[in-house]
Order: sequence, then structure tokens, then C-alpha cells
Amino acid sequence: MIAFTDPAAFGDALRNLPAPDADAIVNAAERQAELTKPSGSLGRLEDIALFMAGWQGTACPGVDRIHIAVFAGNHGVAARGVSAFPADVTAQMVANFQAGGAAINALARALSASFAVHALNLDRPTEDIAEGPAMTTEECLAALTAGAASVPADAQLLIVGEMGIANTTPAAALAAIAYGGSAQDWVGRGSGVGAEALDRKARAVAQALALHGPHCTEPFETLRRLGGREIAAMAGAMLAARHARIPVLLDGFIASAALATLAAAHPAVVDHCLAAHRSAEGAHGALLERLGLVPLLDLGMRLGEGSGAAVAAHIVRAALATHGEMATFAEAAVSAGTS
Amino acid sequence: MIAFTDPAAFGDALRNLPAPDADAIVNAAERQAELTKPSGSLGRLEDIALFMAGWQGTACPGVDRIHIAVFAGNHGVAARGVSAFPADVTAQMVANFQAGGAAINALARALSASFAVHALNLDRPTEDIAEGPAMTTEECLAALTAGAASVPADAQLLIVGEMGIANTTPAAALAAIAYGGSAQDWVGRGSGVGAEALDRKARAVAQALALHGPHCTEPFETLRRLGGREIAAMAGAMLAARHARIPVLLDGFIASAALATLAAAHPAVVDHCLAAHRSAEGAHGALLERLGLVPLLDLGMRLGEGSGAAVAAHIVRAALATHGEMATFAEAAVSAGTS
Repeated sequence: MIAFTDPAAFGDALRNLPAPDADAIVNAAERQAELTKPSGSLGRLEDIALFMAGWQGTACPGVDRIHIAVFAGNHGVAARGVSAFPADVTAQMVANFQAGGAAINALARALSASFAVHALNLDRPTEDIAEGPAMTTEECLAALTAGAASVPADAQLLIVGEMGIANTTPAAALAAIAYGGSAQDWVGRGSGVGAEALDRKARAVAQALALHGPHCTEPFETLRRLGGREIAAMAGAMLAARHARIPVLLDGFIASAALATLAAAHPAVVDHCLAAHRSAEGAHGALLERLGLVPLLDLGMRLGEGSGAAVAAHIVRAALATHGEMATFAEAAVSAGTS
Repeated sequence: MIAFTDPAAFGDALRNLPAPDADAIVNAAERQAELTKPSGSLGRLEDIALFMAGWQGTACPGVDRIHIAVFAGNHGVAARGVSAFPADVTAQMVANFQAGGAAINALARALSASFAVHALNLDRPTEDIAEGPAMTTEECLAALTAGAASVPADAQLLIVGEMGIANTTPAAALAAIAYGGSAQDWVGRGSGVGAEALDRKARAVAQALALHGPHCTEPFETLRRLGGREIAAMAGAMLAARHARIPVLLDGFIASAALATLAAAHPAVVDHCLAAHRSAEGAHGALLERLGLVPLLDLGMRLGEGSGAAVAAHIVRAALATHGEMATFAEAAVSAGTS
């Protein structure tokens, strides 16, 4: 497992990213061309098979073992009234995850995925980002490490989800640091706030950007100042997955903001990620465009918890089922086509 | 089972469509509102749960039993060189379906769905629609009946797929009859034809429309003149499913053209159908718009066989997993939100 012992180790991990296996991709493409279907007729399922082949280093990749890690954190900025729910709900939902009653539990069961929830110091919210840095260096390293430690070495696909009342507020700030634009450009209705709370949210993000912007010169410092424990943990998990060559199915706005913080400085960090869905959170589409990712689903979901990715994971399964199990033209004695 | 003994019986079935259970939808919506998530945050998954509730007549619908029926037919118009594949491929692919080697077989296994292929008189192609009616009255009734007979009474979701070399040609003609427009508006590259074959295809459709258009005054006659056996069977299966209150997950361009032939005269026939995906076949998006359906997926698929629907069926499963299994705010002791 990769260790984030200090900010420099995190930076090194970001600079030394492994690449996919080009030979495996070529071999997978050769297999694709022989399967009993018109060339290209499975659309993005074919692309997904090649993507998975590259990261698993084999022409016939598998995706039986899907792991879903949900990270939970509390946010000082919640006290500003930027969410439709009270901060207590973070801990209540962690109990709900542990009891198996949340949406992600039902979706994980439908997927036969392994599932774990990681509650990160819920009794110690981060500092209000409009007033100071969210975390100390030690706190941010601990969150990154918790994320990295959560990744099972034998997972074939990783989903990272989150729960953290008010966390679309730091996510909007992170998106603005990564790709520019104003607070207004990146804030949205989150779990469903009205106009007044949305206003408070935009003001909090603008204040945070004014305070921290000049200091956000590299990903670690940006995460420490503007992130949250669950957001840093997602970043740590996605980066650790890359070093373990485990592809990531990227969930919604918060997960994308965590990735964007890394990708703004190191664009190649996106290469092992597929975008699961476009969230109904207003700015998610723009964030995915900046990341260069085209979502698999657009179902108006905006729950977090990794829920969008847990739905999209079935598409990855379908892609590998066809790629791995279909007969070739020769095996099935089917005539190939011309155009 | 509904019987299509003569064209009038088919017309009666189209005029007497059962409606969804409004009480079940209200009860399902009440349950939705109590589940541990912000209201509306599961987006279209929530709509799907209400849709399924209405057709199954229960607040907690299930979708364990999914049936996939694939119909195969041959087309006289194939002799005009309108496809990238020779007509023999229809029978070869039926053998491939029976051996379990096609894309739909892999997708059906991934879905734990029951699967059946129905080869409809492959040794007797329909007449060339550019020259005369595709089928006699008896042939068309037999195809509709084969479709209706294929629907298992205990299915909770039905997918109808097809295999028929050249069948995007009659499908384009059916779309033009249903919703107007020229041959050019509705033809596309199908399994992957080049410019010359596309030209032949457009000319064949234009000729068929000129010949049959004035006689296509009701769905049966339209299907008989411009359809194909597998297309009529899909229409028969979808209509029989409606009378059995079994929802249909609509596949691609051919399935949509079969439905459009019914819906142009009886728009309510669409009400028990969800659009699985938007096919890469050029005119499919326009056809779905005319049907008033928003596809769940847009993955660039264009294979037929029911393959797009077999991928989207996982979304229906995910919708009912969350709807049926999630804890309520009261059960989980989670605080509800405000805005």
C-alpha cells in the first residue's frame, strides 16, 4: 500500500503515475474485432472493455470484485446554514449505512459489491473554510491515509462515495481552485437548499476562495485548506487505486471535486477513472467537462454515497460480460460483414 | 393470453388498453417520501419505482423475473443490398443465440434473465416491400400471435429484441408512416452500411412508401405491408404484455418502430414502456421523441437483439432495490431536512 507519510510523499505519488498496459489494450481490441456483432455496435461497452483491459493488464478483464468505500466527515462551514439538513445527519446516516438501510446499501447488494463505511472524526468537524484552513497538515495526511488504506488490494473496480452534511460547499471551492471561475459558478442546491441557503453558500465559498486562494499552489495544500476529511480520503483512495492499477468509477460532484484537485496539477490522474454519471447538482456537468470525462449515466441523481457509481457499475459488468463471453465469427460460423 | 385471431381482434386489443393502478402509484410515492434520502435525490430511479408500482399494482414492486424474447425474421428487401451483412446471417445468428454465444446471451446471463429466441419462418423471407406487401393477412396474424404467445404470464419486465438482416429498412418505412417525413429522414447506417448501400436503402424505403402509403390507414395493415415477421411479433408481444400489465423495456430502432406503428394510432400504448436507450442509429432519437420517451442510456449501442434494454434493465433493478429496501427516516432515526 502506498503511504502518505508527509505532503512530499503525496506529491511524489501524484508525479509518478503508472500507465495502462498498451499491449493488453491492443490484444483486447483484436478480440473485440472478432466477436459476433457489427464492428462498433456495442458503443461505449467496447471502450469500457479496452479501458479495463489496460488497467488489469489482460485482454479479458474481469469485474466480479467491486468495492464501495464510503467516507463520512463533518464540516465547520455547516454552522453557516448552507445545507438543507442539520449536521447531526452525518452521524445518523453512518449508523444507517452500518445497519444496511441506506440507498448505497441496497445498491451494493444489487451489485454483490463489498461495502465499507469509514467515519472520520465526526465529533471533530473541520474548521469553517470561510474562516481558516479546514485541516492541519496532520489531519489532512490522516484523511488521505485513511482513504488509501481503505482500498482492498484485490478489488477489480473501486467506487468511493461520501456522506458529509454541507460538503457541496467545500467541493464548490475546490472546483473553483482547480478550474477557475467564481463561487457562483460552482455552487448548487446540494441536498436541496432554498434560495437563501444557496446565497449563504455562495458567500461562504467566495470568502473561502478570497482567504485561501493565494495559498492553494499545489493539491495537498488545497485539500488541507478547502477540503474535508471525507474529500481528502476520496482523493487518497483514488490515488492509491491508481498505484494498485485498480480502475475507479467516479461518482458525483464531491468525488469529482476531489479528483479535480489532483487533476488540475496532474491531468493524467484521470486516466484510470470512468465517470459514472452526471449529477443533478448544477455544476457537475461543467466539472466533468473540465476533467475530460463523459458520464455513462444522466439520471438526475444527486444523492452522493457513491450511489450513481453503484448504478453505473452494472454497465461495466455488462461490457465485460459481452467482451469475455461472446463467440467469435469463426467459433459461431457467422459470416462477417462488409460496408 | 390475448389472441389475435383476425385483424379486428388486434384492433380491439389496441383500443381497450388497461391503465396503471393509480392507488399503487400514490402509495409508492408516499413510501418514497419517507426513505432516508433528500426528496428527489435518486432522480429517475424514483420515477421508475412509481412506474413499476402502477403496472404491478403494488407500492413495493419487484423485478426479479425479467424475460428477454428475441424474434428473428428474413426480409425480401435484403436482396437489394441494403445491409452490410448477407441474409444468411439471420439464421447463423439464431444458431449463435441458441448456443449462447451472442451479446444478448452474455447480457441475459449477467441479468439472470430468462431468454428465448423465436425464429419465424427464416426460409420464407417476407416479400420485398418496395414491390408489394411484406406479408399476407394470415402471415401477419401468425407473427403477431407468435409474439403474444412468447410473453410469460409471470414476467415482471419484458424485453423484446430482434435479429433480421436488412430490418432497419422496413423499420424506417414504419417510422415514416407513423410520424411523417421522408425516407431520407428515417434511414441510417444500420449494421454499418457505406454510402452506396445507404442510397439503395433510402430508395427502397421511398419506393415502399409510395406504393403502400395510401393503404396504411391502421396499424395492422401498416405492419402487414411494411413490417416483417420479427417486427410484427415485437408489436404483438408488447401489446400482449400491456394486457397482462407487464411493463416493457423498449430496445432500439426496430423495437421503437414496431411500437410507433401502434402508438401513432393509439398513443396510450406507450404508457407501459420505458425507453432503455438511444441507439446510435441516426433516427432513433427522433423516433423516441415522437413516442414521448426519454431514454435511460445513451451509450452509442446499435446492435439490436434487445441488447440496449438488457443493459438498462439493471437500472430498473437498482430503482426497485432502493425503493424496496431503504430504511425510512423514522426507522433509521435520521432527521428530515428543510430547504
